[in-house]
Amino acid sequence: MTSTPQSLHGVIPPVVTPLHPDRSIDTASLERLVRFLLDAGVHGLFVLGSSGETAYLTDSQRDTVLDVVVATAAGEVPVLAGCVETTTGRVIERARMAEKVGADALVATAPFYTRTHPAEIDRHFRAVRAAVDLPLVAYDVPVSVHVKLSVDLLATLAQDGVVDAVKDSSGDDAAFRQLLLRTADLPNFAALTGHEVVVDAMLLAGAHGVVPGLGNVDPHGYVRLYEACRAGDWAAAKAEQDRLARLFSIVEAASPATASGSTAGIGSFKAALALRGVIADATPALPMRPLDEDETAEVRRVLVRAGLL
Amino acid sequence: MTSTPQSLHGVIPPVVTPLHPDRSIDTASLERLVRFLLDAGVHGLFVLGSSGETAYLTDSQRDTVLDVVVATAAGEVPVLAGCVETTTGRVIERARMAEKVGADALVATAPFYTRTHPAEIDRHFRAVRAAVDLPLVAYDVPVSVHVKLSVDLLATLAQDGVVDAVKDSSGDDAAFRQLLLRTADLPNFAALTGHEVVVDAMLLAGAHGVVPGLGNVDPHGYVRLYEACRAGDWAAAKAEQDRLARLFSIVEAASPATASGSTAGIGSFKAALALRGVIADATPALPMRPLDEDETAEVRRVLVRAGLL
Amino acid sequence: MTSTPQSLHGVIPPVVTPLHPDRSIDTASLERLVRFLLDAGVHGLFVLGSSGETAYLTDSQRDTVLDVVVATAAGEVPVLAGCVETTTGRVIERARMAEKVGADALVATAPFYTRTHPAEIDRHFRAVRAAVDLPLVAYDVPVSVHVKLSVDLLATLAQDGVVDAVKDSSGDDAAFRQLLLRTADLPNFAALTGHEVVVDAMLLAGAHGVVPGLGNVDPHGYVRLYEACRAGDWAAAKAEQDRLARLFSIVEAASPATASGSTAGIGSFKAALALRGVIADATPALPMRPLDEDETAEVRRVLVRAGLL
Amino acid sequence: MTSTPQSLHGVIPPVVTPLHPDRSIDTASLERLVRFLLDAGVHGLFVLGSSGETAYLTDSQRDTVLDVVVATAAGEVPVLAGCVETTTGRVIERARMAEKVGADALVATAPFYTRTHPAEIDRHFRAVRAAVDLPLVAYDVPVSVHVKLSVDLLATLAQDGVVDAVKDSSGDDAAFRQLLLRTADLPNFAALTGHEVVVDAMLLAGAHGVVPGLGNVDPHGYVRLYEACRAGDWAAAKAEQDRLARLFSIVEAASPATASGSTAGIGSFKAALALRGVIADATPALPMRPLDEDETAEVRRVLVRAGLL
Repeated sequence: MTSTPQSLHGVIPPVVTPLHPDRSIDTASLERLVRFLLDAGVHGLFVLGSSGETAYLTDSQRDTVLDVVVATAAGEVPVLAGCVETTTGRVIERARMAEKVGADALVATAPFYTRTHPAEIDRHFRAVRAAVDLPLVAYDVPVSVHVKLSVDLLATLAQDGVVDAVKDSSGDDAAFRQLLLRTADLPNFAALTGHEVVVDAMLLAGAHGVVPGLGNVDPHGYVRLYEACRAGDWAAAKAEQDRLARLFSIVEAASPATASGSTAGIGSFKAALALRGVIADATPALPMRPLDEDETAEVRRVLVRAGLL
Repeated sequence: MTSTPQSLHGVIPPVVTPLHPDRSIDTASLERLVRFLLDAGVHGLFVLGSSGETAYLTDSQRDTVLDVVVATAAGEVPVLAGCVETTTGRVIERARMAEKVGADALVATAPFYTRTHPAEIDRHFRAVRAAVDLPLVAYDVPVSVHVKLSVDLLATLAQDGVVDAVKDSSGDDAAFRQLLLRTADLPNFAALTGHEVVVDAMLLAGAHGVVPGLGNVDPHGYVRLYEACRAGDWAAAKAEQDRLARLFSIVEAASPATASGSTAGIGSFKAALALRGVIADATPALPMRPLDEDETAEVRRVLVRAGLL
Repeated sequence: MTSTPQSLHGVIPPVVTPLHPDRSIDTASLERLVRFLLDAGVHGLFVLGSSGETAYLTDSQRDTVLDVVVATAAGEVPVLAGCVETTTGRVIERARMAEKVGADALVATAPFYTRTHPAEIDRHFRAVRAAVDLPLVAYDVPVSVHVKLSVDLLATLAQDGVVDAVKDSSGDDAAFRQLLLRTADLPNFAALTGHEVVVDAMLLAGAHGVVPGLGNVDPHGYVRLYEACRAGDWAAAKAEQDRLARLFSIVEAASPATASGSTAGIGSFKAALALRGVIADATPALPMRPLDEDETAEVRRVLVRAGLL
Repeated sequence: MTSTPQSLHGVIPPVVTPLHPDRSIDTASLERLVRFLLDAGVHGLFVLGSSGETAYLTDSQRDTVLDVVVATAAGEVPVLAGCVETTTGRVIERARMAEKVGADALVATAPFYTRTHPAEIDRHFRAVRAAVDLPLVAYDVPVSVHVKLSVDLLATLAQDGVVDAVKDSSGDDAAFRQLLLRTADLPNFAALTGHEVVVDAMLLAGAHGVVPGLGNVDPHGYVRLYEACRAGDWAAAKAEQDRLARLFSIVEAASPATASGSTAGIGSFKAALALRGVIADATPALPMRPLDEDETAEVRRVLVRAGLL
């Protein structure tokens, strides 16, 4: 946690995208959600990430979402715009739109759908960085991209000033630890974990922040957790993290017999936000389905147990 | 090969997308390529597939490509338009554009980037089919989508009239065989293999056609192969297939030390087409690189050996 | 099908290992099964393969099985002995035992459990071949070993006389086709497909034989299929293959909710053999479970439909 | 770290197996290594694990290794015996031998080579536990077994008294965290991380110990790290862990062009132990190769930098 005030750090939730029951964007709910997160003290907003259903939204829907979040945040905290697209040219197109709308940083993955080579991934990030002059966050998410960004590749891109931060959703904490060591002398580089339930551990290891999907549901908890870590109060951090790890069991509410992992995660986050009165409706985008009544009741039980209802 | 004249069948190359050295669309080369394929006697054109670099093109580039191919084909053979996008809403958007431009059929994969459940994939194809009234081809390509479409799912969608054909690029010939048996009583359903080097074998097994990337390079060979199969001359079919399988070794020209499988395939198809004088330039889209001089010389050697230069 | 009479070819079932209900080896049933296969005209016997539950048997059980099969076959057809072990030293130990008992050839996979490098796999096969002077079959079974043997590696080992045959259970028919082309000038090399439902297709492509798990259940059908292929009667071959592909649906009898793929396959082969009166009991080894009453009834239905009961 | 004195806890290195250049067991070096570890203050010894090359040793070699370690440890710390075999019957056979030799606990994975179902894995561990009355450690190592043991399965086995500990080499720290929460009320259950470079983080999260391959090379460092964690001195723990994480880069010495991950790990541990004078020779078992001169020089450089030479 040697990040300078300028760099990305702290709690940066990947903002979910509220939809109406007809699956159009619910901008009023989105505004409420952004205010809810800002009031809790989050340090940044990651819009159009996996939790934001970016892969499910058309380009015009994405533009709407980005517009609303940038306008609502109004400069209080940095807004990171997901530019999640299959390859370089398409990422750059999204990045230019994000710049135009006023995003503070870009988030891009390696190419997907296509088969990729490390040399091509390197070329990809350099081309994106050269095309749009905004800080660039490399998003390492093998569960979606089916490639793990190597420590070597990320460290080189960081040292060359191509990427300013990494959002690590790889689940490979051992590699993340090595990346922390390899980038320790880069004062403006930020290493962010994407895993909700090991934040205390990764901040002890030297991470600068977290991008927790569950942070939509309990931003106050994640801010407390982050502050405990910064204060070096690791016992308090662990206790808060354990509470949040229990809360994370809302993602087990959806039946695996009929719901994918995407539905289980996004569906339960939305259900919890609807139960907490932050958003109006819990419908996810097609082809996902909303949680049913029983599943929603299970989410409610977990929220009550966690003191959030 | 009990397909009716109306249904999709025969040799349907996935048309590559020629680019200028600056990576803009080379429409003149694209027109020449389409004429080259039509003159060889192909039975359909699959535009904006994996070999067509659809994942590398912006939406406006995709529109251009589709426009050119539909206009050049001018109704001689059906044009199948790839609508390769992450999820349902985005596929439908592409499908509507394809319908407007005049495509004869749509080709869609299961959702990718997201995690998917069979029930969601089923919902996905049904929603696409309901949104746009064109024949729908399910494109089974686990190397890109990271999900295999099960025989059960495909057979059900076929029986329900949701999908009119399958393009099988799964490499799982045993499953493909079972699909052929399960759909044998559906007179208008077409099972197309996407694998260049087992066409004789799969047509013996009952497939209706092939979508061969290598068919860009040697469409005459694939038409001969298909005709030999239809005539029941399996010895001739095997001989032609063996020749084409040897030609397929152009995909080994690119060094695996610096090129991905996508580059190796698309790059070598383009290099061969440039060497044959069909397209002007062999550059693939970013982040791929063109084959270098040595690699191109190796492609040339293979073409000469195959009698194509 | 240019194999010399000396080389491995034709139908070589991977002999299942009958167990008593207490899961000890049922040698009487094993003898009956071997006679059943020989009487059907099979061209070889592969003992201690995946279908033979080799991974489930202790070394002394493996010795018993090998003893019984070698004694019962009595030189009528070659006996191939699976030496399926994690690494080189352990494979060699099994190979020496197989040689002592009188096996005619050895079957070995790449190392498993460990992580392997192609250079290590090459070293592995060479060390096994050097240690025991029997023909060596490379068994390519990525579903178990989690590594695909590359065409380059296999072709090199074949050309160097290290491996005399390949049993391809990779499901990658395109690679298998390339291997056939690469080894076409090796008169004593045998390429055997391990896939029950594409035998006509692979023999058309040039394979020399098949190692069909389902061949335990219907060896007569596989012998007919092989003979039709040899005679060039591809229409008859396809018809027989289609019948056998339908029979193969016995592997879908076991509920995927409680049974693995191993159980589904081995369990149903054993259930079918018990129903046909060839073996006394259908129990598989721990931790597999036998098919239950309903599942066994489904196997019976498929057998009746196929004319085997 | 609420483990009782009786339970497994602390630093439990997976003891490597020294070989002579001819690849026979070097029992004198093994004795020296065990004394080296005991003198450093480790809390247990895990023999015949992945780092111990168990998959490369014949059964009689395994017996020798276990004999030597049990005799040398002489009851000072518990000896955990790896019973790493493909399936239930084979594991039980190894477990009985371990019991006979005097091991204090057994370590078993899920079945491998075969395809497995969670219900079968459950049956597997219960059958092993029922057969041999020693504490049982479930070894979760998907990189070798190609199955991840689910939190649900492990928690159930722990609650039922079937497994007494878990060695987590899955790399999935988020799942490990959930397992810690699910087993927090089981006073005698031990959760051990197998990852060398996140020990501080996982002990903060509640783990009871670590099984570090690198602990062969620097057992004193791991004991210091563990003691700092127990004392709640997380800053000291992080500093020690960072030093050890840098030391871990010895595994990058072997060229990935010719060495597998297994060779890179085991080869470098052995090279470091030979350089430190603990064992006589660094040769690993076939088909692995020893590190070459340049690679060994790189290991030496890292050791010097870490203050170990």
